This record gives sequence, C-alpha cells and structure tokens, in this order.
Amino acid sequence: MSLRVGVIGLGVMGADHARVLQGEVRGAHLAATCDPVGECSHRDPHEMIEVVDAVVIASPDATHADLALACLAAGKPVLCEKPLGATAAEAWRVVEAEVALGRRLVQVGYMRRFDPAYLAMKACDVGEPALLHNIHRNAQAPDWFVGAMPITNSLVHEIDISRWLLDDEITEARVVGQDPMLVTMQTAKGVLISTEVFMNAAYGYHVHAELVGRAGTVAMAQPTRVLTNRAGAHGHGYPMNWVPRFAEAYRAQMNAFVAGARSGSLAGASAWDGYAATAIAEQIIPGLASGLPQTITLPAKPQLYEA
Amino acid sequence: MSLRVGVIGLGVMGADHARVLQGEVRGAHLAATCDPVGECSHRDPHEMIEVVDAVVIASPDATHADLALACLAAGKPVLCEKPLGATAAEAWRVVEAEVALGRRLVQVGYMRRFDPAYLAMKACDVGEPALLHNIHRNAQAPDWFVGAMPITNSLVHEIDISRWLLDDEITEARVVGQDPMLVTMQTAKGVLISTEVFMNAAYGYHVHAELVGRAGTVAMAQPTRVLTNRAGAHGHGYPMNWVPRFAEAYRAQMNAFVAGARSGSLAGASAWDGYAATAIAEQIIPGLASGLPQTITLPAKPQLYEA
Amino acid sequence: MSLRVGVIGLGVMGADHARVLQGEVRGAHLAATCDPVGECSHRDPHEMIEVVDAVVIASPDATHADLALACLAAGKPVLCEKPLGATAAEAWRVVEAEVALGRRLVQVGYMRRFDPAYLAMKACDVGEPALLHNIHRNAQAPDWFVGAMPITNSLVHEIDISRWLLDDEITEARVVGQDPMLVTMQTAKGVLISTEVFMNAAYGYHVHAELVGRAGTVAMAQPTRVLTNRAGAHGHGYPMNWVPRFAEAYRAQMNAFVAGARSGSLAGASAWDGYAATAIAEQIIPGLASGLPQTITLPAKPQLYEA
Amino acid sequence: MSLRVGVIGLGVMGADHARVLQGEVRGAHLAATCDPVGECSHRDPHEMIEVVDAVVIASPDATHADLALACLAAGKPVLCEKPLGATAAEAWRVVEAEVALGRRLVQVGYMRRFDPAYLAMKACDVGEPALLHNIHRNAQAPDWFVGAMPITNSLVHEIDISRWLLDDEITEARVVGQDPMLVTMQTAKGVLISTEVFMNAAYGYHVHAELVGRAGTVAMAQPTRVLTNRAGAHGHGYPMNWVPRFAEAYRAQMNAFVAGARSGSLAGASAWDGYAATAIAEQIIPGLASGLPQTITLPAKPQLYEA
Ligand SMILES: [Mg+2]
Ligand SMILES: [Mg+2]
Ligand SMILES: [Mg+2]
Ligand SMILES: [Mg+2]
Repeated sequence: MSLRVGVIGLGVMGADHARVLQGEVRGAHLAATCDPVGECSHRDPHEMIEVVDAVVIASPDATHADLALACLAAGKPVLCEKPLGATAAEAWRVVEAEVALGRRLVQVGYMRRFDPAYLAMKACDVGEPALLHNIHRNAQAPDWFVGAMPITNSLVHEIDISRWLLDDEITEARVVGQDPMLVTMQTAKGVLISTEVFMNAAYGYHVHAELVGRAGTVAMAQPTRVLTNRAGAHGHGYPMNWVPRFAEAYRAQMNAFVAGARSGSLAGASAWDGYAATAIAEQIIPGLASGLPQTITLPAKPQLYEA
Repeated sequence: MSLRVGVIGLGVMGADHARVLQGEVRGAHLAATCDPVGECSHRDPHEMIEVVDAVVIASPDATHADLALACLAAGKPVLCEKPLGATAAEAWRVVEAEVALGRRLVQVGYMRRFDPAYLAMKACDVGEPALLHNIHRNAQAPDWFVGAMPITNSLVHEIDISRWLLDDEITEARVVGQDPMLVTMQTAKGVLISTEVFMNAAYGYHVHAELVGRAGTVAMAQPTRVLTNRAGAHGHGYPMNWVPRFAEAYRAQMNAFVAGARSGSLAGASAWDGYAATAIAEQIIPGLASGLPQTITLPAKPQLYEA
Repeated sequence: MSLRVGVIGLGVMGADHARVLQGEVRGAHLAATCDPVGECSHRDPHEMIEVVDAVVIASPDATHADLALACLAAGKPVLCEKPLGATAAEAWRVVEAEVALGRRLVQVGYMRRFDPAYLAMKACDVGEPALLHNIHRNAQAPDWFVGAMPITNSLVHEIDISRWLLDDEITEARVVGQDPMLVTMQTAKGVLISTEVFMNAAYGYHVHAELVGRAGTVAMAQPTRVLTNRAGAHGHGYPMNWVPRFAEAYRAQMNAFVAGARSGSLAGASAWDGYAATAIAEQIIPGLASGLPQTITLPAKPQLYEA
Repeated sequence: MSLRVGVIGLGVMGADHARVLQGEVRGAHLAATCDPVGECSHRDPHEMIEVVDAVVIASPDATHADLALACLAAGKPVLCEKPLGATAAEAWRVVEAEVALGRRLVQVGYMRRFDPAYLAMKACDVGEPALLHNIHRNAQAPDWFVGAMPITNSLVHEIDISRWLLDDEITEARVVGQDPMLVTMQTAKGVLISTEVFMNAAYGYHVHAELVGRAGTVAMAQPTRVLTNRAGAHGHGYPMNWVPRFAEAYRAQMNAFVAGARSGSLAGASAWDGYAATAIAEQIIPGLASGLPQTITLPAKPQLYEA
C-alpha cells in the first residue's frame, strides 16, 4: 500500500516537497495538503494529520515544534523542516515527547545528509579527522534576513553537517565578522571546524566543504556535470539559490523518509540532532557581539538516540 | 496499479535491471524473472511474457530480436538491451513488425541518453554543432571480446549517443588502428565525429565527450563528486567497469520506461535507433581491414519514428 | 661576453623576440634590428647578419629559407621562425646547406617544445604511446588565412609537436572537414594521431593535447593559475591569441637558442625538423580535396641530425 | 657590468640561491660564497661583503639581523632570507639602521610575492576584499620544528602574503589547535583571514589561498601543468617540500633583487615588512596557550617605507 503523505505549508519548501511526493518518490503519494491561504485540501493542520499516514512540516519556523508534537501525539511519522523549533527550548519539548513515546517518529529536514557529495566525503578514508572547512555562500540575503539569522538559519546547516560528518560534538565556538562571518568551532574529540557564512556573496549559491584528516583530505568537486568554453571563458555556472544544488538531496531525503516511515525505522537527522543544531546556534549568538569564544554544552543524549 | 515487469536473462545487466525494479523505480515492480539456469520464476520467456505488463530483455544478443518480436506480438512494452539484433537484418525485422503494428512498444537500452552528463551537454547552447569528440575506454577487454566487437559492442554506444546529441545521421566513417581504434565519422549536416575506442586502456573505465559548436564547446566534467589529497596525489578514482559510471542512467532509463509503458508513449532509443546503430556498425566493419572511408546508408525512416 | 643578436622582421613575432632579448634573456642582448619600413638599425638583412653573433628571422615566410642560407653562409647561428621554407623544396635547400657545412647552426621556432605543459607531458610515463589527441583552436582566422593555410600554418605546429612528443615519424594522414578540420595521422611505430584544427572557434585561443599510452594517459591541465567565482560562473579566461599562452615557451626558446649559440650545440627543432613539418604538410594537402588517406614519405634523415 | 653577488650560508636555501645566480639570472653572477664549513670562497662573511656588489643572506636565522646590519653599514644591497631577525627587536634594529641611512637596501626573502599564482590572484578584480582563506600544509615537520615554530617559521609566510595581497594591516589574531592549527586574523580595514597551518599533513607540500571579495572570489588552481589517468586514478602529484612549488618564485625574486640592486630601487618585501611579519607572529604566540584573541599593534610605519 502506498503511504499517504500530507504536507503542511505550501511555501517554497512545501511546494517542492509536494512536487517530489507527486513524481519522484517510491511507495508514497501526496494525499493531502494544508495551507492557511493557498489551494489545498485542508485549512486545519490537525485535521490533516488525522487522515494521512505521514506528515511533512514546511510551515513557518514558529509552528514547527507544536506541529511535530501533534504528529507525535497522533503517532504519525513526520519530516519536519529545519529548524525543529524556533528556540532550543521548543525543540527540546519535541525531544522529551518523543522520548516519552519511546520510539522515533521525527526526522528533521537537514537534507545535506542525503547529498551525494557529502555522502562521498563521509565514505572517504582520510585518516582520523583533524579539521573541517565549511563554506556557505548565498548570492543575496533576503530582506527579512536580519540579526542572528545567519547563525540560526544558515549556520545550523553547517552545525548539523559537521556533527554528522565528524560523528562528534561541538564544544566551543567563536564568531568574527558579520557578512561574511567566520565561525571557528572545536569538538569533543579535538577537531577544528572553520566555517565561512557569506549571505551576500554576489556570484551565486555555493556550498563547499573540505575535510582534513591525518592521512589526507577530501573536498567537494565543483558542482557541475559539464564544463563549457564560451565567450572567452572556461567553466560552469552556479545556481542563484539552494534548490538546484540540493535537488538530489531533497529527493533522496523524501525517499528515505518514506522508506523509514513504512519500515518503522527513520534515518536522517533525528529530533535530538534538530535540537542540538538549534541549541548550539543559540549558545553561539552571544559571541557575535563580544567576539569571544563561547563554551557549548548540551544535556546528556537520551538513550533513544543512541545508534 | 503498479506495473508488473518481467526480466528475461539474469546475467550482469539483467540482475542489475531486476535490482533497480525492486528498489529504485516508481510505479512498477519486479513481477517475474526468466533464466535458463538461474533461480527465477519462469524458464520459458514466452510464458513469462504472457503474465506481465512489460518486459525487459537482457538475455544473450542472439535472442534479442526474436524476444522483442514476441513482445510486439503480445502487445507488451519492452525495454530491450542493446543491440536490438545480432545483425542489422534481425533488427530490421523488429522495426518492420512495430511499423506493422502501428504503435511503438520497443525501447532499446542505450542508457546514456538518460545520463545526467550527456543530458546537460545536450541542453547546453554552444551554437551550431561542428565536431564531436567521443572517448570510450575500458580497463581491460574480456576474453570473448574479439574481431569486430569493439565496433558492434562498444562503438554502437558512441554511434547512438552521437546521433542523439547531434540530432543528425551518420553518412561516412573510417577506422584506423585496432586497440585503440580511431573512428572518424561525418554526418548529413556536415558535422565531424572523432571517436577513440580503447578496450585495454588499463587505468579504468572512462567515457568522455566534448561537443564543439560554432559558439563554444561543452565537455563532461570529471566523473566524481569529491576530490582527495592522499599519498602524494590529488584527484579521484575511476571505476573498473561501466556499472558505477552509469548507475544513475540505468535508474532513470528504467523509470522512463515504466512511465512510458504506463502512459503509452515511450521515450529513449526507439527500435529505429536500435536498428540504425547496428546497421551503421555493420557498414563500418569492412573499413576495418582496408582503412578506407566507408559510405553509410540507411533506408528511409518509417513515419512511425518521426517526432 | 654577451651574445650580440640581431632580429630580422619586426612584425608581431619579431617585435616579441626583440622584447624578450632586451629583458628576459641571460647572456645575450639585442644588438641590431632589420625591417623594410619600421624603426631599426638596418634596412639590409645581409648587412645586419655581418655585424651580429646570432640571428633571429621573423620576416615573411617567403624570405625564411634564403635568410637562413645567408646565416649558414656567414657561419652565424640562427633562430628561424616557422616555417623554415615557404615550400618543402625551399626548406630542403637549408638542410642541404647545413649538411654541407657539417655542423648545426639552424634552430626552427617551433616554440611549443619549450612549453612547460608539453615538457611535463613528455616527461610523464604512461607506457608505450598508442594515441595522441591534439586540439588547436583560434578565436578567429585572419582575413589572409585562406586555402591550405590551416595545414601549412597551423597544423605544422601539431605535426612538429607530435613528432617530438612521440619521437616517431608520420607515415599517413587523412583530412576531413574544412573549419573545423579533423586530421587523422599514423606513425611508423603504429601510433594514431587525432588533430582538430578550428580557426574560428570563437571562444578564444586554446591549444590542448592528451597522450594515450598503454599504461595511462597524460593531458594538459587548463591553462590558468587561478580560478574565479564571478557573476554566476566558475572558471577562468582564455587569451584571444597565442602570445599569452606561449609566453613562457618563447622566453625559454630564446634562452635555449642563446645558450646553444654560445656553446655551439643548439637545442629545439632542427632544420631537419623544420623541413619535415613542411614536407608532411605539403603531402597532406592533396587529401584536403579528395578526403582520401595520403601516404607520407620523407627522405632519409641526414646523419647530422641523429642524436 | 654584471652584478657581483655573494651568498652567505650554503644550506638548502643558500645553495639554491647560488644555483639560481649561476644559471637563471640576468645581469648578475655568483661572485663569492661564504660558509663556516662547506666549500666556499670566504669563511668570514664580513670579508665577503667587502668584495661583492650585493649580498644574499641564507645563514641561520640568528645571524640574519647582524649580517643585514653589516650590509647596510657597507652600503650593499641585500636579499635576506626570512625572518629578518630571530626576534622582532632584532628586526627592528635593521629597520632603524635603514631609516637612519635614508635609503632602502634590504629586501626580505618572502618569495611568494613573486609566485605567478599569487600575482594572478592580486591582479584579479573580485571587488572589495572581505575574507582570505590560507592553507599551508607540509608533508612532515622536521625534528627541530618545535614550540612556536609553526607560527614563527610557517605562519610568517601567511602573515606576509596576507598583508601584501590585501594591502592591509593585521590588528587581531586568535589561534586554536596545535597541528593543524587554525589562525583567525582581522585587519584594520575589517577583512577576515582564516589560516590553516598543518605541519604533518602527510600527503605532500601544499599551499593554497582563496580571496573572497564582495563581487566574487579568486583561488589558486591546482599546482600542476598536466593531469594523468593512471592505475585507477585521475589527478596529479604533489611535491614533498616547497622547493618545486616555488621554483619560479625564487627565480623571479632573484631577478627582481638583481634588477633592484642595479637600479637602486628594490622591490619585494622591505625591512619593514620583514619586521612586521615577525612582530605580528610574536604577538600571536601568547594566544597559543590561552586560546584567546590577541590584539596586534605595530609602531608607526617609517616614512621611508611609504610607497
Ligand atoms: Mg533544508
Ligand atoms: Mg547499455
Ligand atoms: Mg612559433
Ligand atoms: Mg622563503
């Protein structure tokens, strides 16, 4: 039986998740949609949750935690767009509820874990990890991108993928600059992480990483299938936003969610991972003003999330 | 309803098609298998054809045409591994039968048409095509790879992809060398095609192409997602055969076949394309001994295959 | 003592040779110049030859052979721009005169032999050579570039560098197309050579080569020191003519000529090599019209040119 | 007249400078050498300084400042290997002496300023500089490389090249890690600098940089002329130390020194630059233990060093 999936929120991300569910996923179909204003099958997300087998949350960040809690209450697997909560406290409520339930129903949409380039990096043996360079460049920051949003909205991706690539926990961080911003982090195992976040890099959307190990390094190749010679130049183009860059990752993420929902064993970022990314980001923010290193602490990881 | 697909022949290619059908295809499932010796649901391919909605032919080349004809007789869509026939005459019989039937049921497994790199090349505007460079390197030729097989088994891929990339027909060809072999072809529109076929290139399996247009060129990027620095060297590895290189193409080809079989409108290489590749290869072979240019002629393309 | 060098012909190439002699060469200086119209020290090349220690010929092609003969008569080392003669017969007269003299005084300006990329290719071990791909693209052919000039003026560079890279002799050639033109050559040792010559490639000046051996291949890297991300694109620019691409080669060639002139032992392309390139080009031309393979023959190489 | 140059110290660097002077420099020759034990023309550097026109100092670091002062006293142009002094105080004595003399005679051997890749980066327009990524990897640290030497011996190169690329002054720095070490610096104009120094990177010697501007970025291309396909892999090799990587830079640096000594107008890093690199390094060191950001201050730049 094909899994009936409902999508809450039909903005850019929600519409794309719906498109993937309609044409690129095996074992599931788009069964319901919910949006406060757009064309959809439901206005009330709670009613929608009742009539589907699994849920995708792509509504505004402030609603993520409550809707995830509702899915947990209904016993429905849920793919929740990042962040899991608008605050670490909100995200922690989801973790607590899932722990109380005793089984994992929440996957958080840190889609990079399904990107072929990051997967190839993780699979590559370069010896014990020593240092990770992350680069995160947007062509142009949207108007509403203010205050600590480079940290809460962009850096969280780098926090999540660094934790995943290194299988390690972040213990210290320091920020210098605003845009670009340079974030230096350290991990429990002593690995260094250097991250550039540049919201107005002008030339295009570009995510890059290089992992430096004690036996070598592995870095992403340029994100292209073809190279052109045209008008005096050799090379390739960049997309202007993240959608083309991570199209394969979104498709693979949804297929993994569907497979996990059907088998009862979810993959990808857990509620714990979603909480961790937001909690770490929150603890980094005070250093934005002071320029001083911040010590990062997390509560003990609940047993439910041990491999 | 999920399309019931049966696979005939469970060698390397057939087993891989079966694997794709079991885990990577939307709207279809593996419903039957047929092999003379292996574990399978049917020994007789004709009996298997009766009980499925669509067929994949991956049995020995000598059986392709007859099995495709049986599928046409049964009105079942068929994805036939290349070549469509062991000879052009055999392939032509399939074309004639399909034309007599009056609708297309045959897709030929020239999977490169679904490879993201070739698709990106075709989508790229470099002005009017002027010249195409193809490179086809195998690490090591199998024992049974003798005589004209570099032409009938390997060059056919280059013939098909050149016709598809250029949307043009080959009219002349000349071969020099044996291994490597250099094949120079010309098309009806005056485009030049240079193709290296090297069956014992030693270093790995590597397919490359560069299309030269009057406004620029487009070439495949190196086939990798990541680049390493290890043991004194920078770069990436090659696979030792075609399976990893074209894994995405095989998956996309099968999805396209399933979608086409369901909608009644097949994509990919047609029976005419399958015939053309083999007919052109046959006409190139006499030049292998003489080293002289060979004029290539094809019959008029039946109306059924006009776009 | 610094070598007194005189340059005959102050067009693009001659002016550049003069510039190199004034600022980038060790052990020599620009002592005289000769041009029919421009500012220079001499109008009569023969008078100029008398008063210098070594000569650079960069006058029109039709004058090369006679001036080289004058240098031989005067016992002066000479760097003669390619071609050595407007015809093979003319070039042969230079060879004969040098052989009669019994010592080498002529170096021909096939500067690619001093290009770091070609030198690195030649130094690289890829097993026994099997095939060489050459690509020669100009942004736009000059007005005066007509008839067989893609062969006599451009392909000669590919002929010379192929003979040098492979240490082998060309025995057969076939041309298809006009612009681009595809030239397939074969050598005495059985190596295949595929050469694209495209005089109106539009995007820039670009020379590329890949040598395919029985243990691997070696190709030029993209000709750049830096890569940029700008305005939606990644990559680098091409020059619009050969001067920037081969600036290092011209400098190294002149230094080698000066060192050879001082030591009495010239390096680089010899008069024999200059003759061979032009003689092979002449024998290729008839095939331009017929499209048929041409057998190439050269006289026995005089003992003077044996290593 | 050819400039008579004497080299003090015939270790790895001194021997290479002597080699360059003997065969790759225009307008100068190796006239004298001085070493405490090796084969040379002089044992006493002060005697050697008397008999030459210009001096190269490549003796142990502890001797640099005193020998540079001796050259200043003798009025002889000097190319002093980095660092200019074993301490900032020593280097400052050289600055003071040169200022007292009132003309520049000292060039410091920060050879990267003559590297074609760095020069191409500096020439590239990517808008106002915003961030600079430096990577400095050695295959294996020598035994004697202890304590703060990654900062005083390796990071000084990054300090110098960053100041030169950005035409800016460093005002703050923080170090995390030991090997690799990650150094975050900030400049007077607000540019961020991220530098990895990894003394035991295992795979080879590798220096890389990317400059991020507000209109784009420019990075070094991989340091190779050719790319190979061999034994299952594509790519190129790294050298195991800095000599091959910077061979062109050393040659160009010496030619610039000779030209500057002859014309009376030195290029390259000045005594002020040499002092600055060492003074900045010294101020960074305390942060190695504390992990805290260090404020960097320099005295006012003497008028002599204004452009
Ligand atoms: Mg996301
Ligand atoms: Mg196939
Ligand atoms: Mg030339
Ligand atoms: Mg140095």
